Parts: sequence; structure tokens; C-alpha cells
Amino acid sequence: MRILLATDGSPQARGAEVLAGWLGYKLGAKLVILFVRDVRLVRVPELLDFGALTIPVPAYREELEKALTAKGEALLARLAQSAQEAGIPVETLMETGLPHEAILRHARTADLLVLGRSGEAHGGSFAGLGSTVDRVLRASPTPVLVAPVDYVELTGALLGYNASESAVRALHTLAHLAKPLGLAVRVVSVHDDPVQASAWALEAETYLKDQGIPAEALAFSGDPAEHLLSLQGPEDLLALGAPVRRLVLGSTAEYVVRHAVGPVLTVR
Amino acid sequence: MRILLATDGSPQARGAEVLAGWLGYKLGAKLVILFVRDVRLVRVPELLDFGALTIPVPAYREELEKALTAKGEALLARLAQSAQEAGIPVETLMETGLPHEAILRHARTADLLVLGRSGEAHGGSFAGLGSTVDRVLRASPTPVLVAPVDYVELTGALLGYNASESAVRALHTLAHLAKPLGLAVRVVSVHDDPVQASAWALEAETYLKDQGIPAEALAFSGDPAEHLLSLQGPEDLLALGAPVRRLVLGSTAEYVVRHAVGPVLTVR
Repeated sequence: MRILLATDGSPQARGAEVLAGWLGYKLGAKLVILFVRDVRLVRVPELLDFGALTIPVPAYREELEKALTAKGEALLARLAQSAQEAGIPVETLMETGLPHEAILRHARTADLLVLGRSGEAHGGSFAGLGSTVDRVLRASPTPVLVAPVDYVELTGALLGYNASESAVRALHTLAHLAKPLGLAVRVVSVHDDPVQASAWALEAETYLKDQGIPAEALAFSGDPAEHLLSLQGPEDLLALGAPVRRLVLGSTAEYVVRHAVGPVLTVR
Repeated sequence: MRILLATDGSPQARGAEVLAGWLGYKLGAKLVILFVRDVRLVRVPELLDFGALTIPVPAYREELEKALTAKGEALLARLAQSAQEAGIPVETLMETGLPHEAILRHARTADLLVLGRSGEAHGGSFAGLGSTVDRVLRASPTPVLVAPVDYVELTGALLGYNASESAVRALHTLAHLAKPLGLAVRVVSVHDDPVQASAWALEAETYLKDQGIPAEALAFSGDPAEHLLSLQGPEDLLALGAPVRRLVLGSTAEYVVRHAVGPVLTVR
């Protein structure tokens, strides 16, 4: 198994860095750490209109690239060292480009992608979803785990399940993680017809239990996002399917990722 | 892991039955065997216009249902017994309905679906794809393994890889199978730009090798289906992505499934 950790070294990525290492250790996986030199930062001076001022743009650009490289190298070295100390096989990658493009490209050769909820463009108090994460969630062929700023060890799991194609994939992906991590799964199915909600929840519960994963079926009516968010504790991994559409992330998935207190796993 | 075997007991399903058992044994998986009493068979007499003839339709229907039930029970008992004798955990299911609907519903709670290339509606000499298989391939959220009539033990694997979303899923799914089965994978990438073809093939090769799976990158130009079909031996598992569209299976995937000499794994 290969886990891809994408980080820009910002404080907001700290939770993702620690969670990815913990998962690598627990799952016996290889950790691949990616730092992207954001080409938009490097190119900013070229794009600005300096008028009559004489600013040595090429020199400035070179300095910026050097600084980004130094930052990335230090970050990757620090993360690689702590992985190695824990006995986790590790590989580091540095690229220049648009972060979401580089992340999506490397996600193809990973079984799980871990990243934080927002990057360095946002202050630590920012509660929303960064634009890179947003784009990655909408297009990743690989399951994406979005980690909150604060790191916690996972002690349970929650699955939003409505038998849709992406929900089925989320169920299968979660089973692969819950079993080796020893997590019990609460299956949450929401439908205004209680019979349908129960049938969905039981279907997933049966699949999980059959593989030796402790599971509990919960059926509700109302708003799925509300139920999932109120049931998730900070130590619960919340898994759900994100619809296949590329431009609009399903409202439930998007709302949940933005507001969850703990890590969220979305599967397209 | 749960493997779903869907069979109607026809000679054409024999290869799928044996392959599913072999996979269950090799992968330490649970085998779930599904027989569907095709509701279209049961309802045929009601749908025909008998004119002035007096045919006791309800009685005929009852007889047919009884016969189908007896056939299914005998089939499931035989397959369950041979699985048990091999030490494979097994579960049997009998349902009445449209076969593709029942299969797709149960595929949600399976990690792999195995079935034959066509069912009892076709004679043994039929070389095409049955309508049930066709519908299942277009809509299954779970990877589908279509087995040829003749059973062979898998000794190698072939992957068609073009970095598309479904190809990435096929890569990940194949890795999960190739590793425990000890299969070496030949990665086949086809593009008229040889640089692009090589880049794709190397990307998948690297991912596989990194997990200890022997892999070889092959790059070609021309028609992907032609290359895949000419490279596959009867003992090679051929994996490829099927596009997401529901109504039209990608021409490559469809052509390959129809004409392959060995088992084909498609992942949507």
C-alpha cells in the first residue's frame, strides 16, 4: 500500500502530516511525501505591472524559487526522518507546478491521499476548505483523507451510506482501513422512508460484520450532513462517497468536509 | 474479502464457477454464490397470447418456478459443497427477479464479482457477450471478472493503462489481486505519441514494483484492444478500466471482453 501525503509545510497541514505517518505505521504502508513549489508564487512578479519601476524580475524569481526549494527540502527531510525513525518506508518528491495538478498526478500511483483542509494561503483561523483541496476532492481517482488541523489518533469510524456507486466504493475503502486499524464502524443511512434507510444501513453493516469488522446500523430521516456531523467525534474517521460529477461536489460531501470535527475520507 | 459468484448453472458459467472458487481459496476470501430465478422465464406464459386455447397459466407458472427453484438449489448445494471441501467460507443466495438487477444489488456488498461471458439463453458455441453480463459491466460499482468457458489457473496478468480514472482504479484493483496471487504484470500503454505511451506504462510499472509485484512496461502505438488481445494468453488475467458512461461501454473495453481468450477484469 502507498499513502501519498501532500503538504506545503503550513501549520494547517500538521494534522495531515501526523495522521499520514500514523496510518503508514499502522497499515505497514509506504509513505510518499509530496511538496509542490507553487508555480503561481514563482510567477507572481512577472504577472504584475511594475510600470516605470526597474525591478530585476529574473533575479527576484530565482530568489523565490530558491527559497521555496529550501523550504521544501527542509520540510521533506524533517518528515522523512521522523517516518524513518518509526520504521516506515518513505519516499519524498518535490515538483514545481500547480499544486492540485501535481497532487492529482501523483494520486494515481497511491492507494490513499492524505492532506490538510487548507494550505498556507490561509491563516490558521481559516475554517473553510482550501482551493487546492477542493479541486483534488472533485477529481481524485484515489480515496482522499482530509485531516483537520489538530491531530488525534483514530478510535472509531462512521460511514454515510446510501447504496450509490460512490457510497459503495466508500464502504469497500473503509473496510480496507477499518479492519487493520481495529476500528468499529457506525453505518449512517438517511432517507425519509425509514424502511429504505434501515435496508441501506443493514446492507453495509452485514458486509462489514462478515469481514470481522464491528459495525452498527443507524437509520435516520432528514439531512444526511447534519446527522453525520453530529455523530462524528474528533477521533472518528468519517467516510462517505462524493458524486462523480467533476464540477460540483455533492452538497452533502462538500458540507461535511468543510465542517467536520475529525478526518473525512471521500471516495469518488 | 467477499467474492460474489453469479451463475445460472449453464455450461458457459462453469469457468466462472471454478475460477471464483480458486480465487476464494488463494485469497482467503469468502465466496458468496448467487442464483437468480429469472422472472422473465416465469412470466413468459402470462405474456403470450394463447387465443382460444385453454392453458392453465397459474399452474404452469407454479411448475416453472418449482423447476427453477429445484435447479438453483441443486446448483448452490453442489457449489457450496465443493467450496466447503476446499475450506472456503461460503454463503448461498437465491432470488427471483431480473438477473442483472439482482447481481448489481449484491455486487454492492462484494469486493469482486465473478461471472461467465454468457448465460443459458445462449448455446455453448455462442462467442458474444450475454445481455446480463453486458448490463452488469456497464453499471457495477464493484470490479467485475468475466471468465471464459474454459477454466485455467491464472499464471500472469496484463494491464491496459492510460492514466484515466477507471484505468487508475483497474491498476489499484489488480495490485490487490496480483500480489497475493503471485502474478507478474505486463503494463500495456498505447498512444500515438511514444513518449506519452512510455510515461503511462512506467508510471504503472513503478507503482506495482514498489509493492513487490514484478512488472514490465510495454508501450505501443495503434489500437489498444488489438495489442491487449494479442498479448493475452489464456492464463493471463487482463485488467482494464471501463469508462464511467452508463449506456455505452468504452469500445476498447467492450471489444476486449467480447474477444479475450482469458479472464478479463473491468473496473469502472
